[in-house]
Amino acid sequence: MVAIDVNSDLGESYGVWQLGDDNAMLEVVTSANVACGFHAGDPSVLRAACVRAVECEVAIGAQVSYPDLMGFGRRHLDMTPSELRDAVLYQLGALDAFAQVGGAEIEYVKPHGALYHATANDPALARALVDAAAEYDSSLAILGLPGSELLIAADRAGLDAVPEAFADRAYHPDGGLVSRREAGSVLVDADEVAARAVRIAVHNEVVAIDGSVVQVRARSICVHSDTPGAVALARAIRSALDAAGVGVYRFSDESRHRA
Amino acid sequence: MVAIDVNSDLGESYGVWQLGDDNAMLEVVTSANVACGFHAGDPSVLRAACVRAVECEVAIGAQVSYPDLMGFGRRHLDMTPSELRDAVLYQLGALDAFAQVGGAEIEYVKPHGALYHATANDPALARALVDAAAEYDSSLAILGLPGSELLIAADRAGLDAVPEAFADRAYHPDGGLVSRREAGSVLVDADEVAARAVRIAVHNEVVAIDGSVVQVRARSICVHSDTPGAVALARAIRSALDAAGVGVYRFSDESRHRA
Amino acid sequence: MVAIDVNSDLGESYGVWQLGDDNAMLEVVTSANVACGFHAGDPSVLRAACVRAVECEVAIGAQVSYPDLMGFGRRHLDMTPSELRDAVLYQLGALDAFAQVGGAEIEYVKPHGALYHATANDPALARALVDAAAEYDSSLAILGLPGSELLIAADRAGLDAVPEAFADRAYHPDGGLVSRREAGSVLVDADEVAARAVRIAVHNEVVAIDGSVVQVRARSICVHSDTPGAVALARAIRSALDAAGVGVYRFSDESRHRA
Amino acid sequence: MVAIDVNSDLGESYGVWQLGDDNAMLEVVTSANVACGFHAGDPSVLRAACVRAVECEVAIGAQVSYPDLMGFGRRHLDMTPSELRDAVLYQLGALDAFAQVGGAEIEYVKPHGALYHATANDPALARALVDAAAEYDSSLAILGLPGSELLIAADRAGLDAVPEAFADRAYHPDGGLVSRREAGSVLVDADEVAARAVRIAVHNEVVAIDGSVVQVRARSICVHSDTPGAVALARAIRSALDAAGVGVYRFSDESRHRA
Repeated sequence: MVAIDVNSDLGESYGVWQLGDDNAMLEVVTSANVACGFHAGDPSVLRAACVRAVECEVAIGAQVSYPDLMGFGRRHLDMTPSELRDAVLYQLGALDAFAQVGGAEIEYVKPHGALYHATANDPALARALVDAAAEYDSSLAILGLPGSELLIAADRAGLDAVPEAFADRAYHPDGGLVSRREAGSVLVDADEVAARAVRIAVHNEVVAIDGSVVQVRARSICVHSDTPGAVALARAIRSALDAAGVGVYRFSDESRHRA
Repeated sequence: MVAIDVNSDLGESYGVWQLGDDNAMLEVVTSANVACGFHAGDPSVLRAACVRAVECEVAIGAQVSYPDLMGFGRRHLDMTPSELRDAVLYQLGALDAFAQVGGAEIEYVKPHGALYHATANDPALARALVDAAAEYDSSLAILGLPGSELLIAADRAGLDAVPEAFADRAYHPDGGLVSRREAGSVLVDADEVAARAVRIAVHNEVVAIDGSVVQVRARSICVHSDTPGAVALARAIRSALDAAGVGVYRFSDESRHRA
Repeated sequence: MVAIDVNSDLGESYGVWQLGDDNAMLEVVTSANVACGFHAGDPSVLRAACVRAVECEVAIGAQVSYPDLMGFGRRHLDMTPSELRDAVLYQLGALDAFAQVGGAEIEYVKPHGALYHATANDPALARALVDAAAEYDSSLAILGLPGSELLIAADRAGLDAVPEAFADRAYHPDGGLVSRREAGSVLVDADEVAARAVRIAVHNEVVAIDGSVVQVRARSICVHSDTPGAVALARAIRSALDAAGVGVYRFSDESRHRA
Repeated sequence: MVAIDVNSDLGESYGVWQLGDDNAMLEVVTSANVACGFHAGDPSVLRAACVRAVECEVAIGAQVSYPDLMGFGRRHLDMTPSELRDAVLYQLGALDAFAQVGGAEIEYVKPHGALYHATANDPALARALVDAAAEYDSSLAILGLPGSELLIAADRAGLDAVPEAFADRAYHPDGGLVSRREAGSVLVDADEVAARAVRIAVHNEVVAIDGSVVQVRARSICVHSDTPGAVALARAIRSALDAAGVGVYRFSDESRHRA
């Protein structure tokens, strides 16, 4: 039977500022990339997200970031690899405290925003992030872009390297994502996005922006959480996967079984 | 045989700014109250302090604080008990990540600055801090002022409540500390301070600012770390304790044995 | 002819996080309390708010705060008077840069959140805030609670002390505000709130929570901006004032003319 | 008569953390690049630095930076030009408040750390910084590297573009600075550094790391302030300039006279 995980960014409110609807998303996804306070998420937000995730049997991942609340972690900060490693360790420990309060523990790491891109492309930064994860808990998985330096580094370090795909993002024919700055980079039609998700899960492929078909091997599908229509879109994806007979499970269950 | 622990605040540098001499102090003390990033301590500073503490067989405690770099955690911030509990949990997890990198784990919690005073006097804040510690790891000890609300709350929650004394601070006849804002509140003569430390360890008493003798039951003596003469003073205390035949051990060894 | 000013808190978004609808509110109010980056408001948010305020002929005031993004400035921070004075000066200068870009300058100061309450009740903190305003520009007005220590200090320093009233907050019979933590402290019925605003403007009085009538001399009415219904409520107030023949003008026009 | 300005970074302490000796340096330099709170400098530090600078008749410049206390502004942060422009405006206004308290006003802008390098090389970022300065006060000078994009942009915008040289940094034959990461990049011998300063002032030239002589037209010499020997080195430079008959004056006096 075909199975896939669905992940989303959560815990991104901060103080008085709300972002996304964590409780609604936690009924749709199987893996929660919970912010760690560096780009979003105050301690009480992290606690609520982790406790609710555990109640919903959703896996908790650490969505580590550059320290940049003002830029929401979307701006590259030129940290050295050792600075990055230590900043990641700090965030892993902090979030894990809340996962433990919920009765669980963090199961994976996914870098956020500019750090996602930096660790996809820069081997030294990829290795720094993987080193932090391995130092903290060698059973942690790393969630990232297929073929990225991050997943290569994770694989080399013996961590479970989990590739993800994006149902609502346009792809280049080479499997890269079309930049958010370009027109047509983000798809909004729920039926189309849901159909893409099913095709990714069942056939490991996606139609690129030029109409060609691209191979995308993914163990998780990322759905965004930070727009008004995010919950409805996530529900449409989940329903389409269910209707297509795709099993929607936490990827971490699989990797834990392997371990 | 008489035994006592010696604790000090460490890990309080931040980025380019240095404060104290962690490596020198780690050769003198038996317990290190390591900052957690809220009043001081960037991730790389915390890593270095924890790794070196483990090498020196010094116990690592989490020196949790209000989030206030500019005020060094010395200004009261009116957080609710639940905000405080979550802010403490965040810091415990973050620091523990570095203790784990060193091959150890955090063994106790000591609040810093204004939070030290707030949790000494406010039962709700004391309970919030203790709740966080108990949620995180019920074998954590709590280090604080004898008779404080913090130690009362720790004791009620079944945590090891460890009283400390100050060899270089003036005491009121009722056992309270003379405020730093008052003249004569901090003693600087090394011989006098060392003699006071020995008297605390051996006789459980200290001479108050009015000349009377006060009972001070303490399992740890706090030595400060953030002035130019701090290392010399700490060494004088340590030498005097050694010369008096006082065993200087981590209080956590004792409490762990009990657990 | 009866006239009054209408003020509201603006510029309180931060990075990716939106709060309130500044552009809509700027078509309703006559004075904008623009955040200064300490409790809310990144530089680009401040710029946009100031530039649009000038276009709408709305007076710009500096909504100064404790440095506490996580707590949105709503938690008291125990700064010394000189720390507070300097923190206020920093914010006044920062915001004024954007007012100048818009072709105006800041015309008044209104403390936010916990600092509003602290400077209402603590003479030393009130004086610290007024000292900063006077040092920066002695033609700045101070907006605050009638009878507060803040307005007393402003008056003593020769600054224009401008009392404000709240149309949507319940009052105690002594003219104090009912705490937000108590039931019934915030009124939500638009008709009732609008009628209260008119009564404040025309008759200088408000019905207290016990049904008694309280004298409230105010030169400005504060309308809140940070809830979903805030714009509608503000429009209802403005319409009711217009319909009652109350002139709605910037209080600063009046004070500038006096100066 | 030959004349030159001497500038240094000041106001870089933060809360409990001290860096440099502002009062000593203010007796040596003629222009103070005062931090603005983004990489260093809390409001009370800025006030003290500005007030003392005015007393010493030292010109105040705004040492603007990326928002990065942890990295001391030495790490590139990928802000957009409009984000940078607004972040610079915020800092200019904030610092100018303290200059005004001292009875002066900021006279120039010098970017710090990673922003110094970014605006030297990236025309869009250079223009963003210059735009902010021009928006704030078109009589502001811009202090930077000769031939840098920053000075080119300043010149185009009609601002006074002031080139500076470094007496204690090694130069490449093309006039570029040898990176701090390379051996020999920073000179520490006081006599050698002082002699270089005089040669820069009198002959507009410096001996490069390969022994060749490089033309360096500078109206100011930058001396560093953040090491233990900084004050002594600065005094040696100043003495050598005096002894050589070089007039040491604020460059801003000259530029103000031109305006």
